[in-house]
Amino acid sequence: MTHSSSPDTSGPIFVAHEGGKLESVPSKPLRDRKDLSMLYTPGVADVCRAIAQDPQLSFTYTTRRNTVAVVTDGTAVLGLGDIGPVAALPVMEGKAVLFKHFGNVDSVPVCLESGTVEEIVEAVVRLAPTYGGINLEDISAPRCFEIERQLKERLDIPVFHDDQHGTAIVALAALINAAKVVGRDIASLRVVIGGAGAAGVAIANIFRRAGIKDLVVCDSRGIIEPQRSDLTEHKRKLAATTNPLGLRGKLGDALLEADVYVGVSGGTVPESDVAKMADNCIIFALANPDPEVHPTVAHKYAAVVATGRSDFPNQINNVLAFPGLFRGALDSGAPQITEAMKVAAAEAIASLVDNPTATQIVPSVFDERVAPTVARAVSELA
Amino acid sequence: MTHSSSPDTSGPIFVAHEGGKLESVPSKPLRDRKDLSMLYTPGVADVCRAIAQDPQLSFTYTTRRNTVAVVTDGTAVLGLGDIGPVAALPVMEGKAVLFKHFGNVDSVPVCLESGTVEEIVEAVVRLAPTYGGINLEDISAPRCFEIERQLKERLDIPVFHDDQHGTAIVALAALINAAKVVGRDIASLRVVIGGAGAAGVAIANIFRRAGIKDLVVCDSRGIIEPQRSDLTEHKRKLAATTNPLGLRGKLGDALLEADVYVGVSGGTVPESDVAKMADNCIIFALANPDPEVHPTVAHKYAAVVATGRSDFPNQINNVLAFPGLFRGALDSGAPQITEAMKVAAAEAIASLVDNPTATQIVPSVFDERVAPTVARAVSELA
Repeated sequence: MTHSSSPDTSGPIFVAHEGGKLESVPSKPLRDRKDLSMLYTPGVADVCRAIAQDPQLSFTYTTRRNTVAVVTDGTAVLGLGDIGPVAALPVMEGKAVLFKHFGNVDSVPVCLESGTVEEIVEAVVRLAPTYGGINLEDISAPRCFEIERQLKERLDIPVFHDDQHGTAIVALAALINAAKVVGRDIASLRVVIGGAGAAGVAIANIFRRAGIKDLVVCDSRGIIEPQRSDLTEHKRKLAATTNPLGLRGKLGDALLEADVYVGVSGGTVPESDVAKMADNCIIFALANPDPEVHPTVAHKYAAVVATGRSDFPNQINNVLAFPGLFRGALDSGAPQITEAMKVAAAEAIASLVDNPTATQIVPSVFDERVAPTVARAVSELA
Repeated sequence: MTHSSSPDTSGPIFVAHEGGKLESVPSKPLRDRKDLSMLYTPGVADVCRAIAQDPQLSFTYTTRRNTVAVVTDGTAVLGLGDIGPVAALPVMEGKAVLFKHFGNVDSVPVCLESGTVEEIVEAVVRLAPTYGGINLEDISAPRCFEIERQLKERLDIPVFHDDQHGTAIVALAALINAAKVVGRDIASLRVVIGGAGAAGVAIANIFRRAGIKDLVVCDSRGIIEPQRSDLTEHKRKLAATTNPLGLRGKLGDALLEADVYVGVSGGTVPESDVAKMADNCIIFALANPDPEVHPTVAHKYAAVVATGRSDFPNQINNVLAFPGLFRGALDSGAPQITEAMKVAAAEAIASLVDNPTATQIVPSVFDERVAPTVARAVSELA
């Protein structure tokens, strides 16, 4: 293989990645022949026989009990797009580090050569017996919707697309507390979501489930509404279930007197559009590394501002959700993560901020109460 | 799910298996926001971009460098047969424990729903970008031959079916030293292999490569020879490449004046057949837990006896081979494990017994020199 130029691999980030970020470590001691004959042949045969007789025992006597596959095909990695499965591996390893650190969930990267929706679904169904849950990651929209739907239908272990639901859960947690800061009932808020990809669709769904009625979703062409002839299937569904006032036009038209803007688009919203929002409004500009509305601009108009970045207050970070969510699902043996569990997870995250203020609507990702609290909320619904 | 009777899960073996035998552990510290931004977003994006530009960098900056998938479809697990992927998981976990303990190779179980040869091959090709090597395990013959052949052709990482080649390597190591004990050149030995499954075929191949010419393979119906009309494809190949004297008949006919019997059949050889072997003969009865010839019977006729069991001298155990073999392949970046590497691995194992005797023809599995010595031999050929 030849390259026009070699990538620059100098600096501390590459040093930190040398040899990868995960190890597969025995959790039981192997000291002598006796251990060997217990953990491997001939002793292990007794465990195999028992599981063959009752497959549910795999959740007691194997790593399935605590292991989640972090599955990607590398088609929508971070903001980098379709970089392929091998180049996606560092992100999946990072995710596995977070799973273990925050939720004590063992997880392993599974980076698949991409293919059709059917091919990805077949591959995941075939390897599912190894795991207690499937975390889908960085799979391009709209393929991710159908892949998740089919997998949920075919598997009896939790399947969860974090780019959709992780983001949605934390956005809802943040909105619950932002509404308290501005003294509003969230059901009364006029909400505009900018972006109709994986995160935008999931945020719209969880917001509706949380009681928000006046909800408009925009894609790069403008407001999603039934008269548009350019809508894909998942956008047609959005058109049918959102936008109760039948608005038409551009994002700027939607933002007129809106109480909440949630950006998951990667674009930029002109200040003149931000200026149209209602008094005391709420802006979540979640694109990374460049928020759709820069916080210094947002603060001129909004009472509460959140981003996806760690260097501003109110970071909307999925890590607040997925470790505890899977911890709860695995502990309770839940066969799936339901919509109710997602809302409960959001409420649990929000509940950890005692007195929400404009600069603190979500707990810190290093707050050790988060994962156990989310896990408990999920378990109670299982 | 209902069961006519629940399996008995009492006793220390089940206690040792509670929660499984592996953990997926971060190998880099995650202490604060700075670590988080290096190991995950935004820092990780630099590593993804570099790998997208040069995929070979995945062998430096990800777990691929040191991670082997232990892949099964659960169709031929130990002596238990086709018990399915979930019931096979404890064996794959045990294998992963051995990989880490003996070779410092990180490995992860991948238990696949079974299917056609093509389906299994497609699944493994699709998930291969995640790994630095593929160890196939407990896949039924003759499917295992074609699955391995196609995977070797399609992948540029090592693919190794341990039930075939691990057993064959250690059997050759043992034979090299057993020949020394009886004062013979191994090329001059008359060898009979009882069993034409995964292990039998691989042992025949490596023995021929090591210079043994007079080699006969028997299946449950008798000597494999070209006139038989009941041979499957892989047995027809054996018939064409072994049995130079054109013997016909039963195993007992083959054993007449044979110097070596290697049993990998799971059957029983009557003492009257054992008695036909040449003076100073060598018997490897490798079936577990019941050797084809019990050692007390074997010792009445043979100068050297080996089994697959840890409670008799001379245990032929794959763990002498696979950890060092993959260690060497990963360290040297070998795109495959060649036939020459397998023979070199056998010679390396044999070399660690300074003065072979009837009760010591292979090193102990706990001999810490084994994996590094095998790894070095493999690396030198890469």
